[in-house]
Amino acid sequence: MVYLHDIPLPEAWARFEQALKSVNLWGVLGVEEISLTEDALGRVLAEPVWAKISSPNYHASAMDGFAVRSRETEDATPASPCNLIYGAQTAYVDTGDPLPSWADAVIPIENVEPIGESGRLTADARHPYAIRIRAAVTPWSHVRPMGEDIVATQLVLPAGQTLRPVDLGAIAAGGQIHIRVARRPRVAILPTGSELVPIGQAVRPGDIIEYNSLVMAAQVNAWGGVARRYPITPDDFMEINRRVQDAARENDLILLNAGSSAGSEDFSARVIAGLGQLLVHGVAVRPGHPVILGMIRKDGGSLPGGDVQLSQVNNSKSWIPIIGVPGYPVSAALTGEIFVEPLLDGWLGRPHTPPPVIRATVTRKITSPAGDDDYVRFAVGRVGDRVLAAPLARGAGVITSLVRADGLGLIPRGTQGLPAGEEIDIRLYRPLVEIERTIFAIGSHDITLDLLAQFLAAHERRLVSANVGSLGGLVALRRGEAHLAGSHLLDPLTGEYNLSYIPQYLPGVPIKVIALVNREQGLIVAKDNPKGIRSLADLVRPEVTLVNRQRGAGTRVLLDYHLDASGIAKESIRGYNHEEYTHLAVAAAVASGRADCGLGIAAAAKALEIDFIPMFAERYDLIVPLEHYQSSLLHPLFEVLKDRVFIEAVAAMPGYDTTLMGTTIADLNP
Amino acid sequence: MVYLHDIPLPEAWARFEQALKSVNLWGVLGVEEISLTEDALGRVLAEPVWAKISSPNYHASAMDGFAVRSRETEDATPASPCNLIYGAQTAYVDTGDPLPSWADAVIPIENVEPIGESGRLTADARHPYAIRIRAAVTPWSHVRPMGEDIVATQLVLPAGQTLRPVDLGAIAAGGQIHIRVARRPRVAILPTGSELVPIGQAVRPGDIIEYNSLVMAAQVNAWGGVARRYPITPDDFMEINRRVQDAARENDLILLNAGSSAGSEDFSARVIAGLGQLLVHGVAVRPGHPVILGMIRKDGGSLPGGDVQLSQVNNSKSWIPIIGVPGYPVSAALTGEIFVEPLLDGWLGRPHTPPPVIRATVTRKITSPAGDDDYVRFAVGRVGDRVLAAPLARGAGVITSLVRADGLGLIPRGTQGLPAGEEIDIRLYRPLVEIERTIFAIGSHDITLDLLAQFLAAHERRLVSANVGSLGGLVALRRGEAHLAGSHLLDPLTGEYNLSYIPQYLPGVPIKVIALVNREQGLIVAKDNPKGIRSLADLVRPEVTLVNRQRGAGTRVLLDYHLDASGIAKESIRGYNHEEYTHLAVAAAVASGRADCGLGIAAAAKALEIDFIPMFAERYDLIVPLEHYQSSLLHPLFEVLKDRVFIEAVAAMPGYDTTLMGTTIADLNP
Repeated sequence: MVYLHDIPLPEAWARFEQALKSVNLWGVLGVEEISLTEDALGRVLAEPVWAKISSPNYHASAMDGFAVRSRETEDATPASPCNLIYGAQTAYVDTGDPLPSWADAVIPIENVEPIGESGRLTADARHPYAIRIRAAVTPWSHVRPMGEDIVATQLVLPAGQTLRPVDLGAIAAGGQIHIRVARRPRVAILPTGSELVPIGQAVRPGDIIEYNSLVMAAQVNAWGGVARRYPITPDDFMEINRRVQDAARENDLILLNAGSSAGSEDFSARVIAGLGQLLVHGVAVRPGHPVILGMIRKDGGSLPGGDVQLSQVNNSKSWIPIIGVPGYPVSAALTGEIFVEPLLDGWLGRPHTPPPVIRATVTRKITSPAGDDDYVRFAVGRVGDRVLAAPLARGAGVITSLVRADGLGLIPRGTQGLPAGEEIDIRLYRPLVEIERTIFAIGSHDITLDLLAQFLAAHERRLVSANVGSLGGLVALRRGEAHLAGSHLLDPLTGEYNLSYIPQYLPGVPIKVIALVNREQGLIVAKDNPKGIRSLADLVRPEVTLVNRQRGAGTRVLLDYHLDASGIAKESIRGYNHEEYTHLAVAAAVASGRADCGLGIAAAAKALEIDFIPMFAERYDLIVPLEHYQSSLLHPLFEVLKDRVFIEAVAAMPGYDTTLMGTTIADLNP
Repeated sequence: MVYLHDIPLPEAWARFEQALKSVNLWGVLGVEEISLTEDALGRVLAEPVWAKISSPNYHASAMDGFAVRSRETEDATPASPCNLIYGAQTAYVDTGDPLPSWADAVIPIENVEPIGESGRLTADARHPYAIRIRAAVTPWSHVRPMGEDIVATQLVLPAGQTLRPVDLGAIAAGGQIHIRVARRPRVAILPTGSELVPIGQAVRPGDIIEYNSLVMAAQVNAWGGVARRYPITPDDFMEINRRVQDAARENDLILLNAGSSAGSEDFSARVIAGLGQLLVHGVAVRPGHPVILGMIRKDGGSLPGGDVQLSQVNNSKSWIPIIGVPGYPVSAALTGEIFVEPLLDGWLGRPHTPPPVIRATVTRKITSPAGDDDYVRFAVGRVGDRVLAAPLARGAGVITSLVRADGLGLIPRGTQGLPAGEEIDIRLYRPLVEIERTIFAIGSHDITLDLLAQFLAAHERRLVSANVGSLGGLVALRRGEAHLAGSHLLDPLTGEYNLSYIPQYLPGVPIKVIALVNREQGLIVAKDNPKGIRSLADLVRPEVTLVNRQRGAGTRVLLDYHLDASGIAKESIRGYNHEEYTHLAVAAAVASGRADCGLGIAAAAKALEIDFIPMFAERYDLIVPLEHYQSSLLHPLFEVLKDRVFIEAVAAMPGYDTTLMGTTIADLNP
C-alpha cells in the first residue's frame, strides 16, 4: 500500500536533483550538430560560438565612390580643389568592394567632380580621367575596416544562448556553418484513467474529455522538448505498467497523468515503485499536491527486489525520470510549470528566466491551507494609480481560471491566506503592457460583455469582467477596484434603474451612466415547459422548484419587486434560497433538472437550448466614474458602443434592444 | 532613372496601408480549420471560440467518498452520529463520478465510519452496510457542479488570441474539436547581389556572406509566417525580374534584399516599377532608409503601360506587396521589425504587442541626422539606482551590435542627437529581469573577460563589457556608469599597477582592487616576422610601421614607459599616431599588412595566427567600488574567479599566469 505524504517543494526538488545527478541526468542531456539554417531558431547553444573569420574580412568601401590616399587630399579646399588622376591616384569602388591596398579612404561619388582628359566635367562619372575634390578626407573615412563587426576568434555567442534571428546572422558572419546545440529532450505523456475519452468522442455523464496530454504536450514543445502523446490507458495496473515500460525505452522523461494520488484506482505510485524508485509521493503545493517523482529502469527487465538503489546502476542510459502528474487540469498545468519546465531548462543548458513580477493589491480575502505553498491565479489590472489583483476561481478543475489568469501569486507555507488590501507579488503570464491595457468590469453579468470583450480585443484593450451582481459592482467601484460596473438595479419606489442607488453607494464620486442595452427578463424553464409555468404565481405550486440569484443581483431585486407587487410570499417558494451567480448558472440548474425555473435573460435559456417565458423589460447600464470615462484606456470601449457591426451583433441576440446603446443616461456630478 | 526620396515613416506606412486596402490585403489574409492538437500552439484564432458543451457536463463528485442528501446529515454531531444506509441513503463515488440524481453532497471517504450489518466497523470501506457520520454537510459540498468551469455557449477565447497550452485545454473542455485560425502568410526572401556567396562557401576579399535571408527567414517564422529563401540572384535586371515574378506566383509577400538604393547596380526599384507600382522609395529612418514599398501583379503577364492604378484590378488574388530591403544587415533586420512584423500581425489578426519600455540615462553623447528617425542600439543595465543605456556601434554593417543590444532607442526626426546624461525610452529586446542581472564592465579589454562572460552566463549573470581603455574605465566608474573596470595602468614612478591612479580618478570612493591575471605583453608581428623585429629599438627603422593603442589604454602607457626608459623618441616611430581600441584590432591591423607590429597580448596574436615576441609581464586588475563588490549582483563573479575550471581555462591561454586570480590587491578606503 502506498501512502501520500506531502513534503515541502524545495525538499522534493533536492531529492529529485540528487537522483538525477546520481545517474548523470543533470545538465545538458546531449549535444547535436546542426546546419546553420532558419530551423536553428530557438535552439540552445551547447557550446560557445567563436568567430572563424573576421567580418568584414577585408577593408571594405562603405560607399559607392573613389578610393584615395587620404594624404593626397590634404590641401583640397572649396576655393582650391585638387585633382587625382584615375588609375594612379584613385579608383572607383562600389559599396562593399575591397579597398585597393594603396588606399586608406573613400570619397562618395556625389562628392567628386569627374573630369575628362580635356579638363572639363565628363558624363562618365565612373570612368573619368581624373576626379576633382574640394575637401580633404581623413584616413579611413567611408571605409569599413577589416573586423569592424567581428574579429576572427572572438566570442560571438556564449553557450546557453537561445538563438534569435540576429544571432544566426552573427554566427554566419563569423564564418561558422554548423552549430552544436543541446538535443531536444523527448517527453512521453501517458494519460491514464477509465473515465477518460479522447477529444472528439461523444461525452456521456461520467466521461471526462482527456485534454491534459494536449496541454502538457504543448507546454513541453513550447519549452524546447519534443512531446509524444500516448493513447489513453485504462485504470489497470498491468496495462499501465506495460505502457510505462514502452515509453521508458524511447524517451528521456515520462509524464504519467492522473492516478498519482492514493485512492484505490491510483496505480502510478505502485507502478513506479515496482519499476524503479519512488522518490517523492506528495508535495506541499496547491493545486497539485499529489505529485510523484520517481526514477525507473529503462530496460524494465528483471528487477532486483525491494528498494532499488540508483547508485547500483548509475548509467544515464539505464534510468529515466518519471513524474506522476495529478489529474485535475490546473494541477497538471502547474506541475508542468513547477517541475517539467525547470527540468527541461537544465537539460537544454538554458538559464532559467523568471517571469516578470508585479506587486499588486489583493481585492478579496484569500484563505489558504497553512501547510502548503498555495498558488493562486489572479486577474491583474491597473485602476487609477493602483495595480490590483483579483483572485480567480480556486478549483483545480477550472482550466479557464488559468486561461483568464494574468499571473500567479504564491501564498507560502506557514501562512493561512491574505486579507483584502494586502500586497502580493504576482508572476505575470502576460507582458506588463497588456496588463496596462486591461479594463476591469465588475458587477452584473450580461452576455453583451462577452461580445464587447471580443470587439475590444481588436482595439488593443482587454476587458476582464467579474460577476458579483449589480450592488457588488457599485461596492467595488467605491473601493476603486474596477473601471466600470454593469448594473440593472430597479428602484421599487421610482421604477427607474440604477440612478437612485449611485449617490447611496458612491457618495461624492462624479459618475457617467451609459446605457448598454434594454433586455428582456423572464422565467427560464425546461424544454417544452413540462410543468406549465406561466407566471410568478406558479412559483408557489408545491411541485415547482425555483433557482434564485444571489442577494444584490439586479435580477434578484427585480424578482423581489414583482413578488411584492403580486403579493407572493417568498417563504412559500421552494428553492428561493438556492442561489446562483450568473444567468448561465441559473439556466444550467434548470437544464440539469436541479430546478424547474429561474428568472434570467433569454440568451441564457437559448444558450442551453431550453425555454424562456418573457416577463419584464429592463435597462442594463454601465456605471463609469468620470475619472475613468475620460481616460484613454476606456476610450475604445465607447467607440465600440457606436460601432454598427457591434450594435447589430447585440441586436441579433434574442430579447435585446440596442436603441439606447451608448447614450448617456445621466451625468451625476455631486 | 529612379530616385531615392526619403519620406517620413508614418507617411510611408499610410501609403502602404492604402494600397493594401485597395486590393483587399488588409486584415486577416485567410482562415483555415485545423484539428485541436499540440500543433495548434502559437496559431492565432481567426474566430472566437464558444463552448459547445459545459465542463463538467454533469454534477461531479470532487472527492472519493459517499454521495448523500445533505438534509439527512443535519443532525449529525460528534457526540450523536447518524447512520446512512448504503444504497437507500448513500452510494460510493470516485472523484469525477456523476452525482446520483437524488444526492446533493459528497462526504470524503476519510470522514466516514463504514459500518457492517452487525453495527460495527467493517474493513470493506467501499461497500459497507451503512456509513456513520459525525458532522453535517452543507448542500453541494465536495461537488463540482455542472458548468463549474465552462457553461455551454460561453465565450472561451476571443478571435486574435495566440494559442497557449492552457488555451488548447479550455477549447477541448468546451467540446470543440476543430478551430479556425489565420492562415500563415507565405513570405519569399530573395537575396540579390553579385558579391554575395552562400553560407559555407569559401570567402575571398570582396565576397560577402549572404546571411540576411537567414535572419529575415527566422524573423518571419518567429512572427508566424512561413518563410521561403530563394537562391542568390546576381545583379542582373532580367534575372531579378524573372525571380520576382516566380516568387509572386507562390507567396503573399516578397522581401527583395539589397539593390534597394539608387546606385548603378540597384535594380529593385526599376524591377518593382516595371511589374506594378512603386509606392515608396526611401523612408526617413536610420539605419535602413533606402527601403522600397511596392505592389506588383501576381500574374506578371502583359502589363498596362505607365503607372498602373491598383484600383484597376482590386483583387487580392492579383496583387502582392513587395518590400525592397536594404543590404546592410542591421538595416535589413530593422526593416523586418519596422515593416514586416506589423504586416504579419495584421494578416494574422493578432493585436500588436509593443515591447516593454524602460527609461534610461544615456552614457555618451549621440549625434543623429536631424532629418531621420534614428534607431540606436543600446546595452542597458542598472548601476546603483540608475538605469543606464550605453550606445553600441552605430554602423549598419555591425550585426553584433544587434546581438549585443538590450534594446532600441529612437532619436526622432527633428532632433540632432542626445547629450550624455539625457534620458531616453528604450524598447527592450530582453526581459527586464535579464537587464537587472547585467554586470557592466568598462575599461581595458582582456580576452579573459570573454571567458568570464561565458562562465557567468551559467550563474544567471550577463557580463557586458565596453572597451575604452584603462583610464577610460576609471573615468566611467567615477561617473557611476559601470560596476567594475578592467585596468592595467603602470605607474612609471613606482613600477606598481593601478593603485596610484585610483585616488586620483576616484577620490573618496571605497574601492576593492582584485587581481584578474598576470599576462605577457609583447610585439605582435606578421607571420614568421618578415621584418626581423626583435625589440623596441626596431620601431624607429624606416621600413617598420607601428599600430598603436589609443591614449589612456594601459598598453599605451606601458609602451610609452618603455620607450622613455629606452630613450626612444615617439616622433621617430612611423605609425605611432595610428590608434586602435583593442588588442584584437591591433593584431588585425598587423595581419592585414596595414602595420608591421604593435604592442599587445599573445592571445590576440595567436587568435589571428600571427607571431608574438614576448617583452614585459603586467598585472591586469578588476577595479570594483566597494558598493558593487558587496552586491549580490557581482557575487557570482568572484565565485567564478575561484572556480578551478575557469582558472584552468585561462591558464591554458598563451601568456597568462593565474597565480593571483581573485586575490585582493588592495582595499582603498579613503
